[in-house]
Amino acid sequence: MNLATTTQAWITRVEHKLDTVLPADTQHPQKLHQAMRYSVLGGGKRIRPLLVYASGVSLGAPIEALDAPAAAIELMHAFSLVHDDLPAMDDDELRRGRPTAHIAFDEATAILAADALQPLAFKVIATDPDLRVTAETRLRMIQLLADACGSLGMTGGQSIDLSSEGRKLSAAQLEHMYKLKTGCLLEASVLAGAITAGANDATVELLKRYIDNLGLAFQIRDDVLDVEGATEVIGKQQGADIERNKATWPALFGMAAAKQKSAELLEAALREIESLGAAADPLREIARYMVSRCM
Amino acid sequence: MNLATTTQAWITRVEHKLDTVLPADTQHPQKLHQAMRYSVLGGGKRIRPLLVYASGVSLGAPIEALDAPAAAIELMHAFSLVHDDLPAMDDDELRRGRPTAHIAFDEATAILAADALQPLAFKVIATDPDLRVTAETRLRMIQLLADACGSLGMTGGQSIDLSSEGRKLSAAQLEHMYKLKTGCLLEASVLAGAITAGANDATVELLKRYIDNLGLAFQIRDDVLDVEGATEVIGKQQGADIERNKATWPALFGMAAAKQKSAELLEAALREIESLGAAADPLREIARYMVSRCM
Repeated sequence: MNLATTTQAWITRVEHKLDTVLPADTQHPQKLHQAMRYSVLGGGKRIRPLLVYASGVSLGAPIEALDAPAAAIELMHAFSLVHDDLPAMDDDELRRGRPTAHIAFDEATAILAADALQPLAFKVIATDPDLRVTAETRLRMIQLLADACGSLGMTGGQSIDLSSEGRKLSAAQLEHMYKLKTGCLLEASVLAGAITAGANDATVELLKRYIDNLGLAFQIRDDVLDVEGATEVIGKQQGADIERNKATWPALFGMAAAKQKSAELLEAALREIESLGAAADPLREIARYMVSRCM
Repeated sequence: MNLATTTQAWITRVEHKLDTVLPADTQHPQKLHQAMRYSVLGGGKRIRPLLVYASGVSLGAPIEALDAPAAAIELMHAFSLVHDDLPAMDDDELRRGRPTAHIAFDEATAILAADALQPLAFKVIATDPDLRVTAETRLRMIQLLADACGSLGMTGGQSIDLSSEGRKLSAAQLEHMYKLKTGCLLEASVLAGAITAGANDATVELLKRYIDNLGLAFQIRDDVLDVEGATEVIGKQQGADIERNKATWPALFGMAAAKQKSAELLEAALREIESLGAAADPLREIARYMVSRCM
């Protein structure tokens, strides 16, 4: 697998699907649709869709069946970013090198645009014709996505993140917050690919351990980049976490320990999928890609 | 049917289901779960659940199968109220006679609590064991709910409502805004009950016309109450629409014409379901209840 070519092909696929399922910006109410498209189609690393494809392809799913879950999960991710950026939350003005949605439009439109991305994500899984799985499997995927995004998943994680500003968290508390805020949707991405491929329970359990390790490695790497990366590389204000006195791995343990922890977790993730053999190379490549970017 | 007894029994049913599906407020993250429960369990007319029950019972669905769609739709309604009340939107401090969620908690928590109600609604439909319908029927209901709440439904309606403040709308524009903001979820309520009962396509079409008329009658009645009702009856600041210079039916045509239009639409709604016979009395009673309240 040529990683650069493959990831670019997958990104093209998911962006085409996103473009298709999002209402046209000429459709009424236009401003809302413009804000939805702005929030979703404005670039981004597309890590979650890549995980859907890597997992699905590794386990033998037809590529065109993976477009819908990949798009649905990216819609959910975009929803969370728009709300996280709001003045009442992280109050960020820059995202992916562009003004955040509430700056480019207005606060009410940003809130509503993100609100409308959620049902669209569920609808895509419920109805997409290229997702050739049984109705029961679609329901399982809807449950997976709902759990990953609800109060015991991503949204709960953001709530904990906000309430932890200025407080010193233990490593366990920090891991729990990472797990909810970022880990749950990353896990849903890998499992959505696996479920589309018809993976058995044992494989699903093994993939959960893979993404548990990889997700934390990725989050720690993100924190490292927040300190070290230039604004133009990471696409948001550098040092924003420090400025807000946010609990992060580097703040708690220092940069060197954070980098080492991230590398160890990557190795642990790779060990978990050893038994899947050469077919799972896409899952290995994507793992290295997620943790090594911008190092 | 004794309306008062029946509606109270249905309200008790849906509130029990809501209490069951919402995470306990002792569960971590507590503040988020407290805000979710505060937003959902704080009273309210429960019009949408009543429509689910009235429709389902009229068409022969077992009552316990209706609890899940009734609860799911109320979760979606509560989500929309919390976001509509935010400072960036209608900036309301009072809802159902109590402080709105962002006043009782804080703005970030209110945004997130509502965000977490959406996936919960979809999860309830995807998984509730008492909703004894096929997986295909659950998916149909998920699509129905997603369409009703998305950018071409409720959320789109709120966007149009905000952008119409201070502008003079035509009757057609106003009806379109009402239809999206309120009508779509009311329609989803009636259809969710009908789908649970296994209604055929002809009945579904007839119910769409019933709720189309009834929904507009209900919205006009709501506007009338905003002008005439005392704060303690309507549970929010009286005259709030006028203060914000919102487009409403009374503002456009005057109070007398608004009341007459509402009464005519009620009659039209009742005519649409004449063919359903005595079994559909719950749909008739609920229609009169929705339009006559507080007159």
